[in-house]
This record gives sequence, C-alpha cells and structure tokens, in this order.
Amino acid sequence: MTDKLTPVSHEITRIGWIGTGVMGLSMCGHLLDAGFKVSVFTRTKSKAKALLDKGAVWAESPMAVAHNSDVVFSIVGFPPDVREVYFGEQGVLRGLKSGAVSVDMTTTSPSLAVEIADAARGQGAFALDAPVSGGDVGARNAKLSIMVGGDDAVFQAVLPLFRLMGGNIVHQGQAGAGQHAKMCNQIVIAGTMIGVCESMVYAAAAGLDPTKVLESITKGAAYCWSLENLAPRILKGDFAPGFMIDHFIKDMGIALEEARRMGIRLPGLDLVERIYKEASALGHGRDGTQALYQALRKMSIG
Amino acid sequence: MTDKLTPVSHEITRIGWIGTGVMGLSMCGHLLDAGFKVSVFTRTKSKAKALLDKGAVWAESPMAVAHNSDVVFSIVGFPPDVREVYFGEQGVLRGLKSGAVSVDMTTTSPSLAVEIADAARGQGAFALDAPVSGGDVGARNAKLSIMVGGDDAVFQAVLPLFRLMGGNIVHQGQAGAGQHAKMCNQIVIAGTMIGVCESMVYAAAAGLDPTKVLESITKGAAYCWSLENLAPRILKGDFAPGFMIDHFIKDMGIALEEARRMGIRLPGLDLVERIYKEASALGHGRDGTQALYQALRKMSIG
Repeated sequence: MTDKLTPVSHEITRIGWIGTGVMGLSMCGHLLDAGFKVSVFTRTKSKAKALLDKGAVWAESPMAVAHNSDVVFSIVGFPPDVREVYFGEQGVLRGLKSGAVSVDMTTTSPSLAVEIADAARGQGAFALDAPVSGGDVGARNAKLSIMVGGDDAVFQAVLPLFRLMGGNIVHQGQAGAGQHAKMCNQIVIAGTMIGVCESMVYAAAAGLDPTKVLESITKGAAYCWSLENLAPRILKGDFAPGFMIDHFIKDMGIALEEARRMGIRLPGLDLVERIYKEASALGHGRDGTQALYQALRKMSIG
Repeated sequence: MTDKLTPVSHEITRIGWIGTGVMGLSMCGHLLDAGFKVSVFTRTKSKAKALLDKGAVWAESPMAVAHNSDVVFSIVGFPPDVREVYFGEQGVLRGLKSGAVSVDMTTTSPSLAVEIADAARGQGAFALDAPVSGGDVGARNAKLSIMVGGDDAVFQAVLPLFRLMGGNIVHQGQAGAGQHAKMCNQIVIAGTMIGVCESMVYAAAAGLDPTKVLESITKGAAYCWSLENLAPRILKGDFAPGFMIDHFIKDMGIALEEARRMGIRLPGLDLVERIYKEASALGHGRDGTQALYQALRKMSIG
C-alpha cells in the first residue's frame, strides 16, 4: 500500500473539495492560495462563488469532483449528508480513482468513517477521517486542530495539505480514530458548558454580580475555554453562534450512539444532550451553545 | 459602623488563627512572616507546631483566640466544624470583642456565613466570609483567589491581610456572597470533571491513545484546567489528592442545598454529586477528584 501511495504523495496536484460552508470556504481557500488546482462541488452552487472567483473549477457532483482529483476533501453537515456524498449515485466513491485519497473533515460517526474507509480500500483507493476543531476563526487563520484516522502512509501523504489548514495535526490511529478523538473533544465541552451555565444560573439566583464572580473564578481550577469565552457573552445577552446548538446535539448524539455500541455509559453526556434538546425545543436550536443558559434558567425557575 | 471600624483598621496588630491544616498552616505562616502577633488554636495542638516554632502563641480555645485578637481567621473542615468554632461554648463569638472582626475562610454554607455575620453584628463586632481557591500551592505561594462577603468597610480593613495570602481578592457582596461565589467556582469544576473523566472513559473504550487525544484537544475549545492538570494524572494512574473527593462532595452538597433554598434546579451538579457519592461509596472518598474516572469506568463497564 505504501508503494501504491508513494507516487500519489509526490504528485498531489489535483484537489477536490466538497462542501463550502463557513469552514469549507476558508479551508479550501488556503489550498487555492497555495497554488493547487481545485475542483469544487457544493449543494448550492452560489455558495462556491468565492472559491470559483479564486480559480476553483466547478464540478457537477461529488463523483465528478473525485474523478478529477488525487485527493478529495469533504466537509458537509450531518451524517446522512456524508453518506449521500460518499455512497450516493453521484457519490465520491463512484469517482474515486485507484490510488486516490478521500478525506472527510465533517464531524460524523466513527462507524461511518470506517464504512467509507472499507469501501475506498475495496476499490484500491484510500480514505481518512479528519474532523477539526477551532471554529471559523481557526479555519480562517489556518490554525485548526485536525484529528486524523486512517493508515499512517496515507496520513503522511496528505499531511502537507493538512498543514495548509491546521496548526495542531495529530494522527489518532486507524479509520474512525479521528472521529473518536473529536467525540472526546465534544464530551469535555459538554461538561464545561453545563458547569459554566449552571454556575451563571446560580450566581443570578444568589444575587451576585456575575462579572465579579468571573473575576474570582476565571483564573483558577474552574478555568475553561467556555468560562473565558462564552460566560461573558451570556452576561451580555449575546446568544449568537459560535457553535450552533443543533450541531452540538448532532455531535453528542453520535458520541452517545458510539458509547452504546461500545457498551459504555456516559451519564453526564446523556444528561447534557437531553438538556440541549430541551433548549432546541424551546427554540434555541440555531443559537450558540451558550444559550443553554437560557434553557437552564427557564427550567430552573420552572 | 465605618467610624467604629476605622480604629481597628489602623490598629490591626493582634491576629487570631483557628485551623492549621495544609491550607491554614501556609496562610497563617504568611501573617507571621509579615511580623504580626498571632494566637493559634487548632483541634490537635501538634499540628500547630510549625506556627508555634515561628512565634505564634497557643490559645486554649476559639474563644481564647478571639479574646486576644483584632481579627480572627478560621479555616477548618466541614460546616458543623465551623458552627462549633463560632457558636460552641468555647466559640469565637464568646470571645469576639466589640469592633473586632472574624473571617471564616472555610468553604461552608452561605446561610451559615449570614448567621455568623448576624451574630457578630449583634455584639458590636463584624464578620466576613472569605473562602479561597488555589489549593495548597496557591496557599504556599500566597496566590490564592479569595472571595469575600461582608460589609465593604470591613473588607477594606482586612484587605492588607488578605493581600499577604492571596493574588486575586474580590469583594463579592454582602455576608454569604463570598461563599456563594465559591459555590459558582465548584459548580464549574463539577462540570469540567465529568466532561474530562467521561472523555477519558470514551477514549479508552474506543481504543484510542489517550495521550494523543489530549494532544489534539487540550489547546482548543475543550480546554480546561482539569483537562490540562488532572487528565494526565488519570493516564498515569495517579489518583492522589489534590482535592479530596469527600471534600468536593461536601461543597456540592452545600451548593445543592442553597439551590433548593433559592428555588432553582441544577441538574448537572445534581448528577455529578450523585456520581461522586458512588465514587466515595466505592472507596475513593480520600482520593483526588480525578478518581471520578475510576468510578465512571467501573459504572460504565457495568
């Protein structure tokens, strides 16, 4: 396999990109800026305009993108979207050539990543799962954390491209391991979010000045990214995303499904998912994750 | 009141100290190093030896300490200990002189802090609640975060002494507000701990290399003090405290009791408290809070 791949790694010139949301636009833009030829597909062609203006070439389907490419990247929405992009009638796997590599950077299920990798291998191609964290700012500044699953030789071949998008790139293990690592990330965030939001609910109920509370607690053992970055937004009544509640519910659902499959219980994550679902039911689905505070307050006060 | 206090604030020369655990020893040591006369009481006299060697004078009871002092500090164990130290037959309130100040630095219930403040006021004296965070290292290096409740003039009078012990001193509001702020701190920590420990349980079940997972997730939106400082201890099998599970259960119990009293629900904290109680029942009560991981793994695997 390494032999088969080596030529690819020295000749990655044609890149494919599927999915041009906020993240994809920035990430693909870095590859174009580096001088790569990129063919692009996304569900709504108008959303690819910025990339086409930069010299990307439009392709009519994921299959067509794959057909044109040594390495195809995808970053789309939900697991069913990923499934359609790869396994659909006009999907990546119909176009992926022997020796080529597909890289799904969507946060999706580890099991689906394994399915894709198996299917790619079955046709003499390769697949990596490479979800990211760092948000729109990380994407724009090419400082993403990229968590990669798949064969090491394939990871090494694609690494120069990852370096154009990310600042912290770690090969986590075999197919699916990138997605699993991303789930670990989201599980920690779920804990920090419930802690931060309940703390702010408590502070309000106790009649404290929450700004002073943050002054006392932000630098010590309670420190977390969410406390520093999202608690001040809560206090300002700023519930814009950031990271959207409905997307976070998707991620937590994946982690819980995998946990069930692996036979482990994650009671904390389970609770946080349920509360976020209540937040979504209350109309906060398209707000940022910090809007958990509003749902908790509503639930708390009863 | 300010008039009554002003003389005290200019004449704090005699200090009392009650409680010489790991925290109290360091904190009182800083006051002695600054040249203050300190009388000391603690339940087990031998534990005060280091302070007596530094020039502190032994007193036979909290009452005797208070009788000798312009400002009396206490940092003991659980709320019933605080109650005994203040309201007992040989308690601080029996000895506290008019115009003097008591400062309880134990993490205890906000309601109890209000009771103490009311009782002190009833005899022409003053009380502050001033719990800390920052642990033994913060105490040793005089870098504690000190969260203070009580009248502002009293806070200002004692501030020079707080500065000898802490690096981040915030007046949170009236009596009990210091304790409430500390509860906010503990509520966030409860969230980070469940997130970090469940994440590590998931990583192990998924067959990931947890060190690589930490490499990917420690610097981004999942960052928290617990992830950076306690997750590596979990991976090394180091479950020594740090901060003891049974003490954390005490703190969470106080926060939940106050929440009930204030009519709010904290479902996340409630769950984390229950899991920590299971951890204690499994024999981890005197381990560090990171031993939640072991209890979760046991519960998870079933």
